[in-house]
Amino acid sequence: MASTARPSFSLGNETLKVPLALFALNRQRLCERLRKNAAVQAGSVVVLQGGEEMQRYCTDTSIIFRQESFFHWAFGVIESGCYGVIDVDTGKSTLFVPRLPPSYATWMGKIHSKEHFKEKYAVDDVQYTDEIASVLTSQMPSALLTLRGVNTDSGSVCREASFEGISKFNVNNTILHPEIVECRVFKTDMELEVLRYTNRISSEAHREVMKAVKVGMKEYEMESLFDMGGEYYCFASDITCSFPANGKFTEDQKAIYEAVLKSCRAVMSTMKPGVWWPDMHRLADRIHLEELTRIGLLRGSVDAMLQVHLGAVFMPHGLGHFLGLDVHDVGGYPEGVERIDEPGLRSLRTARRLEPGMVLTVEPGIYFIDHLLDQALADPAQACFFNHEVLQRFRTFGGVRIEEDVVVTNSGMELLTCVPRTVEEIEACMAGCDKAFTPSSGPK
Amino acid sequence: MASTARPSFSLGNETLKVPLALFALNRQRLCERLRKNAAVQAGSVVVLQGGEEMQRYCTDTSIIFRQESFFHWAFGVIESGCYGVIDVDTGKSTLFVPRLPPSYATWMGKIHSKEHFKEKYAVDDVQYTDEIASVLTSQMPSALLTLRGVNTDSGSVCREASFEGISKFNVNNTILHPEIVECRVFKTDMELEVLRYTNRISSEAHREVMKAVKVGMKEYEMESLFDMGGEYYCFASDITCSFPANGKFTEDQKAIYEAVLKSCRAVMSTMKPGVWWPDMHRLADRIHLEELTRIGLLRGSVDAMLQVHLGAVFMPHGLGHFLGLDVHDVGGYPEGVERIDEPGLRSLRTARRLEPGMVLTVEPGIYFIDHLLDQALADPAQACFFNHEVLQRFRTFGGVRIEEDVVVTNSGMELLTCVPRTVEEIEACMAGCDKAFTPSSGPK
Repeated sequence: MASTARPSFSLGNETLKVPLALFALNRQRLCERLRKNAAVQAGSVVVLQGGEEMQRYCTDTSIIFRQESFFHWAFGVIESGCYGVIDVDTGKSTLFVPRLPPSYATWMGKIHSKEHFKEKYAVDDVQYTDEIASVLTSQMPSALLTLRGVNTDSGSVCREASFEGISKFNVNNTILHPEIVECRVFKTDMELEVLRYTNRISSEAHREVMKAVKVGMKEYEMESLFDMGGEYYCFASDITCSFPANGKFTEDQKAIYEAVLKSCRAVMSTMKPGVWWPDMHRLADRIHLEELTRIGLLRGSVDAMLQVHLGAVFMPHGLGHFLGLDVHDVGGYPEGVERIDEPGLRSLRTARRLEPGMVLTVEPGIYFIDHLLDQALADPAQACFFNHEVLQRFRTFGGVRIEEDVVVTNSGMELLTCVPRTVEEIEACMAGCDKAFTPSSGPK
Repeated sequence: MASTARPSFSLGNETLKVPLALFALNRQRLCERLRKNAAVQAGSVVVLQGGEEMQRYCTDTSIIFRQESFFHWAFGVIESGCYGVIDVDTGKSTLFVPRLPPSYATWMGKIHSKEHFKEKYAVDDVQYTDEIASVLTSQMPSALLTLRGVNTDSGSVCREASFEGISKFNVNNTILHPEIVECRVFKTDMELEVLRYTNRISSEAHREVMKAVKVGMKEYEMESLFDMGGEYYCFASDITCSFPANGKFTEDQKAIYEAVLKSCRAVMSTMKPGVWWPDMHRLADRIHLEELTRIGLLRGSVDAMLQVHLGAVFMPHGLGHFLGLDVHDVGGYPEGVERIDEPGLRSLRTARRLEPGMVLTVEPGIYFIDHLLDQALADPAQACFFNHEVLQRFRTFGGVRIEEDVVVTNSGMELLTCVPRTVEEIEACMAGCDKAFTPSSGPK
């Protein structure tokens, strides 16, 4: 490999080439943030530990390795068992790779040199993991910044870097997590390129499913909810399409579907920097209640319905979440942003104001879920709004969700997903006319 | 579901229906073994804990659930978070399933009743996992037999069943493991049916790969080593095919390939109850060395070559392993069977004598691995056998492996795998003539 080549990752053939410069920029951004943090003393280094291979229970069957997302964000390394060190003052990066025994070459192929990894990952230095204590000792860092913090979606604490001899260093495990999480919330142009790509290939997969699903399958009415997204080099996508398995909407299906599409497009048209995400959830609720009133399932004042949280009966989930290296990406609730303890809204994975570079899903839905409807009917404050006869018709309807992936721009948002969305587009696609739709991308 | 129906598992459409009676028979076999064990007191019950859902690192992304193999062997349950109890005296089985909160129904669908699981899994009783201590207390067992033991392939210890309140019981964790492992070594007719099926569908997949690989791919010479096997309802297969990517063997490729095919078929022809598996490994070594001598790569006495373990230079792996619910199935080294500390042989995952009902892979190979060849050439005792000029021609050859799955019968063995194996069959298959081969199954 010529040292002048710009290293990149791809899966060969026609797949996207992702420049390793993406990760160099991420490390640089992290260092810049940390240098502005008064709690970070000069001479500090970031120490991240990558993911490790795992076996299935007590057997020797390996579970397919997937890199830990924080480590991937900083180094883009696909191998297991690595460490990464970043000098906060200089930005110098050192990757530590496992020293493999000669027997490894018997079955796994060539054992690569440190030089190989240095070029492959465009880092400043490569050392072996068994040397990490001595390499760090020679650098005499004032502090090791390790990663410890709670994932606000799972409630789990991430695994802090650890190695033999770490106790001899001054370790700080509180500074790094909020800073790196905040970096991950805002996607760079290079990251957006990859997310556009994962969305494009996942959109294509959805269209293929839509075309294939009609052949020889039973008519489950509106139960075809496909929530799926491909991952490329750890970058996620998350797309949901709803369509009738037999390729043709009934009147009721069309009414519910178009209510959800309306709220989805209203949210996308309103999104821009400064908008508070819970307001978008409430906007979707309002449109759903208006539309359910229009078709006669509800009656009365929509404002009064919102007062008693009727929207959450039909949309008990949150409107959308951050998307990036994780499907439910980090940073939804940094210090100072509180979860709203109300039906529906408490399910939101973020309650932040929108800023440019944030990538989110917009995924409104209307569901008819027996135990939630029964709860609502048992509550006089909610029951009074229902037309019981019409509701009965929808009891076995199932639900509709539409999920798009978008990035917040300086003046609005950019739609990353590209699948048939209107009733006409979906019916045309399922009938085999794939080119019948032009995606609406909302204002840029 | 009518209570008279025979419960079975399948993935729908044309896939195999596996009777749940398979697991009832396994439980019965286990109880019969345990009742013959003098260390098991009357009133004992077996307590197994199933696998649990896992998340990717600290995120809320679930890793696809796969049942733990011992639990699957005894209950065939595909859900996570379960326990199973078997009364050794009576054989009565109780399945404990998680009590799901009503909120589960919002996204995951109907919450099934205990009666549903009782019929689905054909067990005698179903209770909730949070009742396990009280249910067991009411049965007043003399001892709980829990599973603790080392997997001889991974060296890992399996996770012992544990629940709140278990400390009040008399727990024995040493009896169960060797007994259930020994049951798993011998496959029942119902289990063999499933293994035949996984082998059949995996063989079909291999044939499709062979046909597809020729189109538009680079000629990597003999490096096309496809070691893959599908899994159905946790039953594994493990098949390797070697073929030239361009569809046509060179003379050298043909010579090495046919040497491996010869050893593979010689082993299969010799396998029968009473045969010691390490002898089969040595038989394959001998044939490889004879053939390498015939083509001029080695010279001298094959017996002398065997004395200095020259076979292990070309076949450093073991000839084959048990196959079942795990790809490397348990039971290779029960108490009294020792690993043989010699090159090649020490890699064997079992050193047992063959018995009817054992399922094994037969997977001889000849590889040209630089660091092993260099080691051999540096050792005068081994170097003297090499024709250096001919060896040089094979340095970049790669390797050939043939892997078949077989079951030991009363008088020989039955071949489960059905893929093109001779040079002629492979070339015909890669040219698109799929029906050109008739598999050799050896003596029954």
